[in-house]
Amino acid sequence: MALSLGLIGGGFMGKAHALAYRAAGAVFGDVPHVRMAAFCDVHLTRAESLSGQFGFDRATDSWQALVEDPEIDIVSITVPNTLHKTIALAALAAGKHVHCEKPLALTCADAQEMEAAARRAKGRTIVGYNYIHNPIVRHARRLIEEGAIGRPVHFRGWVDEDYQADPDLPWTWRARRADAGLGALGDLGCHLVSMSHILMGPMESLIADNQIIHETRPLPDGNGRAPVENEDTASAIVRYASGAQGTLCTSRSAWGRKNKLDWEVHGTRGMIAFSQERLNELQIYEACGPRDRQGFRTILAGPEHPPYAAFCPAPGHQLGFGDLKTIEVATFLRAIASDEDVFPNFTDALAFEAAIHAIDTSAREERRVTL
Amino acid sequence: MALSLGLIGGGFMGKAHALAYRAAGAVFGDVPHVRMAAFCDVHLTRAESLSGQFGFDRATDSWQALVEDPEIDIVSITVPNTLHKTIALAALAAGKHVHCEKPLALTCADAQEMEAAARRAKGRTIVGYNYIHNPIVRHARRLIEEGAIGRPVHFRGWVDEDYQADPDLPWTWRARRADAGLGALGDLGCHLVSMSHILMGPMESLIADNQIIHETRPLPDGNGRAPVENEDTASAIVRYASGAQGTLCTSRSAWGRKNKLDWEVHGTRGMIAFSQERLNELQIYEACGPRDRQGFRTILAGPEHPPYAAFCPAPGHQLGFGDLKTIEVATFLRAIASDEDVFPNFTDALAFEAAIHAIDTSAREERRVTL
Amino acid sequence: MALSLGLIGGGFMGKAHALAYRAAGAVFGDVPHVRMAAFCDVHLTRAESLSGQFGFDRATDSWQALVEDPEIDIVSITVPNTLHKTIALAALAAGKHVHCEKPLALTCADAQEMEAAARRAKGRTIVGYNYIHNPIVRHARRLIEEGAIGRPVHFRGWVDEDYQADPDLPWTWRARRADAGLGALGDLGCHLVSMSHILMGPMESLIADNQIIHETRPLPDGNGRAPVENEDTASAIVRYASGAQGTLCTSRSAWGRKNKLDWEVHGTRGMIAFSQERLNELQIYEACGPRDRQGFRTILAGPEHPPYAAFCPAPGHQLGFGDLKTIEVATFLRAIASDEDVFPNFTDALAFEAAIHAIDTSAREERRVTL
Amino acid sequence: MALSLGLIGGGFMGKAHALAYRAAGAVFGDVPHVRMAAFCDVHLTRAESLSGQFGFDRATDSWQALVEDPEIDIVSITVPNTLHKTIALAALAAGKHVHCEKPLALTCADAQEMEAAARRAKGRTIVGYNYIHNPIVRHARRLIEEGAIGRPVHFRGWVDEDYQADPDLPWTWRARRADAGLGALGDLGCHLVSMSHILMGPMESLIADNQIIHETRPLPDGNGRAPVENEDTASAIVRYASGAQGTLCTSRSAWGRKNKLDWEVHGTRGMIAFSQERLNELQIYEACGPRDRQGFRTILAGPEHPPYAAFCPAPGHQLGFGDLKTIEVATFLRAIASDEDVFPNFTDALAFEAAIHAIDTSAREERRVTL
Repeated sequence: MALSLGLIGGGFMGKAHALAYRAAGAVFGDVPHVRMAAFCDVHLTRAESLSGQFGFDRATDSWQALVEDPEIDIVSITVPNTLHKTIALAALAAGKHVHCEKPLALTCADAQEMEAAARRAKGRTIVGYNYIHNPIVRHARRLIEEGAIGRPVHFRGWVDEDYQADPDLPWTWRARRADAGLGALGDLGCHLVSMSHILMGPMESLIADNQIIHETRPLPDGNGRAPVENEDTASAIVRYASGAQGTLCTSRSAWGRKNKLDWEVHGTRGMIAFSQERLNELQIYEACGPRDRQGFRTILAGPEHPPYAAFCPAPGHQLGFGDLKTIEVATFLRAIASDEDVFPNFTDALAFEAAIHAIDTSAREERRVTL
Repeated sequence: MALSLGLIGGGFMGKAHALAYRAAGAVFGDVPHVRMAAFCDVHLTRAESLSGQFGFDRATDSWQALVEDPEIDIVSITVPNTLHKTIALAALAAGKHVHCEKPLALTCADAQEMEAAARRAKGRTIVGYNYIHNPIVRHARRLIEEGAIGRPVHFRGWVDEDYQADPDLPWTWRARRADAGLGALGDLGCHLVSMSHILMGPMESLIADNQIIHETRPLPDGNGRAPVENEDTASAIVRYASGAQGTLCTSRSAWGRKNKLDWEVHGTRGMIAFSQERLNELQIYEACGPRDRQGFRTILAGPEHPPYAAFCPAPGHQLGFGDLKTIEVATFLRAIASDEDVFPNFTDALAFEAAIHAIDTSAREERRVTL
Repeated sequence: MALSLGLIGGGFMGKAHALAYRAAGAVFGDVPHVRMAAFCDVHLTRAESLSGQFGFDRATDSWQALVEDPEIDIVSITVPNTLHKTIALAALAAGKHVHCEKPLALTCADAQEMEAAARRAKGRTIVGYNYIHNPIVRHARRLIEEGAIGRPVHFRGWVDEDYQADPDLPWTWRARRADAGLGALGDLGCHLVSMSHILMGPMESLIADNQIIHETRPLPDGNGRAPVENEDTASAIVRYASGAQGTLCTSRSAWGRKNKLDWEVHGTRGMIAFSQERLNELQIYEACGPRDRQGFRTILAGPEHPPYAAFCPAPGHQLGFGDLKTIEVATFLRAIASDEDVFPNFTDALAFEAAIHAIDTSAREERRVTL
Repeated sequence: MALSLGLIGGGFMGKAHALAYRAAGAVFGDVPHVRMAAFCDVHLTRAESLSGQFGFDRATDSWQALVEDPEIDIVSITVPNTLHKTIALAALAAGKHVHCEKPLALTCADAQEMEAAARRAKGRTIVGYNYIHNPIVRHARRLIEEGAIGRPVHFRGWVDEDYQADPDLPWTWRARRADAGLGALGDLGCHLVSMSHILMGPMESLIADNQIIHETRPLPDGNGRAPVENEDTASAIVRYASGAQGTLCTSRSAWGRKNKLDWEVHGTRGMIAFSQERLNELQIYEACGPRDRQGFRTILAGPEHPPYAAFCPAPGHQLGFGDLKTIEVATFLRAIASDEDVFPNFTDALAFEAAIHAIDTSAREERRVTL
């Protein structure tokens, strides 16, 4: 079986997708072959150049043409967030399998519309929450399911970067809600929610606050300053459907943090902790054995943690960011081949993204929001 | 100048105070000599035994006698929290300098009454928030004041232990609000607030939630179970008077955490982070210099961080918990000798403790609480 | 320009090479296109299966046929170490560019023969010391060259794994010098020497000792035990040509170490340290600025550290083991395209491997060995 | 029972001893009371000032008078190393118990003479190798004895500081062998040997090399430069009597290292590692249980690790450098009271120090040295 890929978007994530679709079949013997069929960027020369570099058969600057091409099986959408909805709806309508980068959309209403379309469509969907495919994160989830730390009762999560920390950065469209939607919550917070979801299950309600640290930024042309409309930080205290509680915090203005998506799951018999900046390590404390020997144990990712072994049979050799994307792609390809459900599809992603919008709502309206 | 000490309480903190009062003058050449005058424990034999061990002149089982003894200058109160108020009020009334363990009292009203008495009294007061005397924490505060990380805009703080993590622990008086007051907030949270206060200044308002993980515990006599009335965890989202925001979280049921009072101060030009379980280290990120060399720097406590050098002229040799108590005592002794203000006195402590009660109120009444 | 690859060997490193050759052109826009021409494994069915998985045009079980195929430009050799020499000599004789896994050979004499052949051949060569291609390691080297830590005066290096730590592991051919050559030095030590070489320059002489921890191992068939002939650990004290000194240690029986290739370069103005198990981090201490702020700084790999940005424009996202191999391959492809020297070619690799054999000689003959 | 202390030396270690003798009885209920009888410094005003600060009964500038004072039971020697021998011999001859700072003497011959005198004397002796009294180090030793990591087969040890790292530091007497004896080996290396000894047992033979990094230093008066005669770094490869091997390395010119006495014990069933800069933590890997959960565990010092509980009943509260000295003193006082052997007495210390001289000899004479 071979599946034809049409990839839209020549930015960071476009490249990440291209590399992952090229690699998936070679890494995993059990996924369908992918034909790199068409690559689309809004600039034709860029489309042609990257199409060649990534090994696509042809280039185009028309996503509509790509989406309607009957030879294309999978449409991968890595364009700016504002464009996700239009393209995804068109691709679903055309019967394609759709791989969409996160977040689905700028608003919850748009995400709901996409999700509804996905439910009606015949194609499979997946959304690019790639960190949850990390073998050591999957292992954490398995350990929790097996009871290694008892019943999960509390969660702490943070996701911080510093790309908006510098007070002197010029204003960009990212600062305008109409163009960019949420701030840190949309860029980062939804990744954290995806982790919270697989580890703790769904949320029930939350209270939250948020903060614009740099209220205005200088306009690039030097003519004065413009307001920042979306949050630099957001913090939420959450009640889970299970009865557990937790906090989720995010900042895009946290100097020194580069990709610090960290979390702790507190259980009745132990704790598990993880940090994305050391994505091959897991910390676990199990409250058993002699007390004088108890402590947090650092588990290094290795072949005992599927699907690490597909990349390397030796432990401690370290997977990278790109490898997580490859696992995501393989997951999607396998699901398409076997016509089975994927996780996280548009429905799952909507659940993640409803949470970041609930945080935003709670913060702006100063009230508890139920999910 | 010599000051006579009367110490009340033969538990963990009683010993910590005794050791610190014994050491302070020898460590620091500039503090008044302390005469270990009288030691009180409710059990006379224990009082006598520990009095001998700690080098006191005499033992008593009457705190009233100790407090009224005209030869005593300083009364140190390390008894269970319920008894702080009665003894402190008596000692202040008797004109003593009062060193009281944290928290001042079980309720905010009681703490207010103690604070009012302290303001009217002629003796000086200090409360045992010893972690803020850590040389490397003082250094952090100095760095922030000097602008090393720009304007502080966000705070994250946690203080976790695991002494109530075990679901099988029997019920004790600690679980009853009437006897113990708050749970994790009273034991741990107030330490975190003291850190927040010296680093970020006063709070303005907050929203919070809390959680009783183990709702009942087995009675020690085996006859059924009794309810736990105070919180195992609490989480708050805070607005500071400065305009900064932050989160403060605490748990007494966090397996593996032994004294994990950690915090991060996010500034407009950098970040500083600290962990009490590695109390001789500070992490700082300064957004300056070549970008390819930027990173978090681990500063090890050393003689450049006063008053570390009084303990050891060589860096990296590590101060311990007891040394922080010795610094607290020396701070108090110096203030008494020079008749100057101490930090944190009863007024400062009231401010810290008002915050933990505000968290509790917010959590129980589900509303924003202004401080 | 397109180059045709013939890859020999269907093990761990064969797959690593296949993935890297597939990825290199897509990651880097400036490297020649690679045609995955032929894949060889000694078992034809395995060759055919993997050839399909990796995307080769054809499969063969004859390395001779592959090496002599006029359409092949590059021969990649990932077979067991005993076979490197024969195949490499044949490939060089056939005018191919040769990519050989480390170590070149079991003995120094064989490595010398290969190196001499490479010098006479028209093809370019590279040897699979992929860890030195790590962007953060390259950055370390650049920092040293720029004088960030003054003159390098001392080196400490270790490379430990635990694949032979278990006393109960059965005997294999790895334990026989005639089949496997050196023990930990050959598997691991040569990687460490490659690091030492790029950071400290060539060695002048050394003294060493080594150790067989498990002197015999049970035969797999249960009939008694057989001797282990090569070292579990080796330790050397080295004098560099520059006048610096250092130690290099390796163990294949170090429980808990999975890929712990760590080193420190001590300079007259600072120190740099690295750990392969956290391959995206560098530690640097620069003895400058206020003393109360000095400390080791953790630099996270990011786009400021070429060629990280080719994989990801955002810092802290983590490269993996496979990405290092991709950089190695790209380095080779660029050198072939521009007909320039590669590092490390067979001559460089011989220098690395001469050092491990010198350590072995010094340990066995109990004398200082000059390189 | 009460023991009278005479303490000689008003430097760093003099203060450390004074604080420890003041604290020991109060920390531990079971040690004899100490009378702070007499304090000696070569400068009478300093002696008087510190005597008052430390709480001694009287001050003197005559160590001879102190040593011969019949009221003194214990003589504590914290003067510069060159003076240890004369004073210790006199104190032993006078029948005193002698607490001598490390190292015993500048040369092995002098240390042997002191050890012989100690064996003949009636007083007990102890030498200030205080790091081996760390509760978490004692715990490591106990774990090894109990077989937690199987048979110890390999050791790695380092002890690095940076007090001689700066090339611009002026020349001092520390650089002259006649005055200072060994360099890094004498200041630091002997501490490492003491660790090696309690963990691995006695050494059998070794090979070594050493290095003077800064061959001359500027004279303080600005008139030229003088040679540095003793080693900045030393490295040894050791064979233990048990058959194990190991490496011991030291540097006093390792920028950024403040008190980095680290070690690893490799066993046949696990590994234990320790770092003095985090003296309340132990790392242990036990090769048991499910492989997917194995990892290094960080044990935090707590009341399960005697005698931590005497300082604090709560885990994770951190002991400091001074607390280790207090444990050393208590060990000595108990041994005197019960008339039992102390570890490490002059005989044990001689064994430690013989090793550093063997390293020096091996390095200078370029040959294997047997102990």
